[in-house]
Amino acid sequence: MKKQDRRTFLSTSALLGAGMIAGPAMATKPKKMVLHHVFFWLKNPDSKEDLAKLLSGLQTLKGIKTVRNIHIGLPAATEERSVVDSSYSVSELLFFDDLAGQKTYQDDPIHLKFIADCGHLWEKVIVYDSIDV
Amino acid sequence: MKKQDRRTFLSTSALLGAGMIAGPAMATKPKKMVLHHVFFWLKNPDSKEDLAKLLSGLQTLKGIKTVRNIHIGLPAATEERSVVDSSYSVSELLFFDDLAGQKTYQDDPIHLKFIADCGHLWEKVIVYDSIDV
Repeated sequence: MKKQDRRTFLSTSALLGAGMIAGPAMATKPKKMVLHHVFFWLKNPDSKEDLAKLLSGLQTLKGIKTVRNIHIGLPAATEERSVVDSSYSVSELLFFDDLAGQKTYQDDPIHLKFIADCGHLWEKVIVYDSIDV
Repeated sequence: MKKQDRRTFLSTSALLGAGMIAGPAMATKPKKMVLHHVFFWLKNPDSKEDLAKLLSGLQTLKGIKTVRNIHIGLPAATEERSVVDSSYSVSELLFFDDLAGQKTYQDDPIHLKFIADCGHLWEKVIVYDSIDV
């Protein structure tokens, strides 16, 4: 950054910080991601076939254009504690840039196909949507 | 990769895949991260002070050496649906390289201090530990 640029940047930052001018998102400000945590309990938790089908269905969600990152998981063999719920079958974690991205995902044909193909496999699902502080 | 290297690699892969020899983690295999999802319900959900104290305490967890990534969040304003639980106060998501990293975190003095300082703030906590498939 040239000295002049730097001076302009600092000056603009100060004004933005003080809320005196409106500006575009600053590069120095970390993005607040929207996290979509989903936990599935299979109707037939001992069926390897049902598990494989659900995992395979979840993989298709990567194709939705607003999905920034995805983690598909199984309960980890951490210490058993009263606060740890390891009764679920599969976890799914998706990252979006914003609420609009999450909404686009909900309505995307790939997501709707996943529900149509796999919705009969689970008996319970809990969703926690969070946004970075 | 040279032809000879490639042949050796493929041969080793085949043996590893067949479980016939033990080998180090292969560079081509994506790492299976351990995710530690925690949801907190504050005793006083309307207290901004308690919320700030919990958020501040959670920030200290970044200092634990086995924590690879952290997301501290609040319920996001996504669509209200019966499967979405937005009743929690704060979410915390930590990434570890492996189960050993998660165990180290549990026993780390920074984590223990967080529990000592903030444990009285919440009335309920649910933990889901998952490992990438």
